[in-house]
Amino acid sequence: MDDAPGARVWAIAEGYLPEGGGADDRALSSHETLCVLNAGDEDAEIEILVHFADREPAGPYRLGVAARRVKHLRFDDLREPEAVPRGTDFAAVLRASVPVVVQHSRLDSRRGSLALLSTIAHAAG
Amino acid sequence: MDDAPGARVWAIAEGYLPEGGGADDRALSSHETLCVLNAGDEDAEIEILVHFADREPAGPYRLGVAARRVKHLRFDDLREPEAVPRGTDFAAVLRASVPVVVQHSRLDSRRGSLALLSTIAHAAG
Amino acid sequence: MDDAPGARVWAIAEGYLPEGGGADDRALSSHETLCVLNAGDEDAEIEILVHFADREPAGPYRLGVAARRVKHLRFDDLREPEAVPRGTDFAAVLRASVPVVVQHSRLDSRRGSLALLSTIAHAAG
Amino acid sequence: MDDAPGARVWAIAEGYLPEGGGADDRALSSHETLCVLNAGDEDAEIEILVHFADREPAGPYRLGVAARRVKHLRFDDLREPEAVPRGTDFAAVLRASVPVVVQHSRLDSRRGSLALLSTIAHAAG
Repeated sequence: MDDAPGARVWAIAEGYLPEGGGADDRALSSHETLCVLNAGDEDAEIEILVHFADREPAGPYRLGVAARRVKHLRFDDLREPEAVPRGTDFAAVLRASVPVVVQHSRLDSRRGSLALLSTIAHAAG
Repeated sequence: MDDAPGARVWAIAEGYLPEGGGADDRALSSHETLCVLNAGDEDAEIEILVHFADREPAGPYRLGVAARRVKHLRFDDLREPEAVPRGTDFAAVLRASVPVVVQHSRLDSRRGSLALLSTIAHAAG
Repeated sequence: MDDAPGARVWAIAEGYLPEGGGADDRALSSHETLCVLNAGDEDAEIEILVHFADREPAGPYRLGVAARRVKHLRFDDLREPEAVPRGTDFAAVLRASVPVVVQHSRLDSRRGSLALLSTIAHAAG
Repeated sequence: MDDAPGARVWAIAEGYLPEGGGADDRALSSHETLCVLNAGDEDAEIEILVHFADREPAGPYRLGVAARRVKHLRFDDLREPEAVPRGTDFAAVLRASVPVVVQHSRLDSRRGSLALLSTIAHAAG
C-alpha cells in the first residue's frame, strides 16, 4: 500500500554465526537471520554489506523482495560473492530501493537447548 | 490520557510459529505474540495484515483494544479470515485508529526448555 | 551531563510475571525489570502506570532515580499502591521529570534453565 | 560511505555481568557486549561511561573503531580505568566522534544452557 511502513537503510551491529549446534535439522541449527518485510506495492531491490572487525566489508550481496512479501534471509545461506565465516564477529548494512522493515534474529543451539535473540534493526535514511 | 505514547502503524518482520513444543500447557506451548497497549482514553480499532514469502497477505484481522487496556494477541489464536500456518515465515503490519504501542515476542519450547525473544516493533505514521 | 540521552515518556506492552521458577535464588527467580538510566545531572522523579487487559490501570508507582544513576526496577518488588499479580498480562507507561533511558527485560526460569528477553522501550515525548 | 547510518550518542540501561557460567570456553562464558559498527569512511573515537546504582560513573573507557569496521566489546574486557564488577546492575552511555550503530547483547550460561538477549541501543544526538 502507498503508506507502507519502513526505511531504506538499516543496520545491525551484533552479527555472529555460532559454530555447530543441531546440524541435522536446518530449522534448529544455529543461524542468524535478517527478516525483510516489503509491505509496499513496488518490488524492492536489496543490497547488503557485511562488515568485519579486521578486514574490508564483504558484498554487496544482492537480492529482491517482491511487493507485499517478506524474506527471512539466513546469513549462512549467503554465497555470492563469498560465504560469511562462522565464529566471526560481523555487522551488516542493508539498503533497499523502497521502504522496508528489517528485524534481526539469532537462534543458538550450541548447547542443545535453544536460545533466541531478536531486535528491530536500526533504521536510517 | 491525552498525551498517550504510541503510533498508528507498526510492523514486525520476523514472524514464525514453531511447530510443536509444550502443547499441554497453553502458556508454555510455542507461540508468538503482538502486545498492543492503548494507553489513551479512546478505544482503538486495530487491523492486522499478515505477510508471507510466497503469497498475498492474509487478513485484515480485526480486533479492538479498549481505552487504557493492553491486549496480548497470540498469532495462533487468529482464525478469521484464516489461521496463520505453523512452520512458515511471516511478517505483520498493524494499523490502529489511535496511537498504540506494539511489542513483539515469541516463546519457543520445541526443545523442552524455553527460549524467548522480544522487541518493540517498528513504529511508523 | 547537559546533553544526557533519553526521553520523558516510555512504554512497554509485553509485561508478564511468570509464576514459579528458581525461587531460592532471587537473581535466578523469574522476574521482569524496567531499567531506568538517568545519565543527566538532575535527579529524576518517576511515575509508572501498569495497564491490564480487563481493569483500570494500577498506580501510579512513584520512585526516584538520582542524577547519573541507574535503577533496575523489578515489577515483583512493586508494592504501593498494590502488587502486580503473577500470571497476568500487563503493560507499563513510565513518565519522568527529566530525560531518562528505559530498557525492559525478563528472566524466565520456569523450566529450570534460563530464558531472557530485552528491548529498549518505546520512547515518546 | 558518506551516508553511513548511525548516531553519535547511544545508551543502554540493562547492564549486568552474571557471575559464573561456562568459564572454560570464553565464547560460552556469561558475558555482555556492546557491538559498535562504524560503517563510515572515517575512524571513530569512542568514549563509554558506565553508570551504577549507588556510585558515580566509571570511565571514560576509550577505544577506537576503524572506518568500515565493527567492534564487539565485552564489558568483562574493560580494564582501564577500572574493571566492571560482576553481579552488579549497571548502564552505559557511548559517545562517538562520527555516527555509529550500537547493539547490546548478553549471553547467560549460569545454568549450563544458553540464554540470549539483544536490542539495538537507544540512539540520541
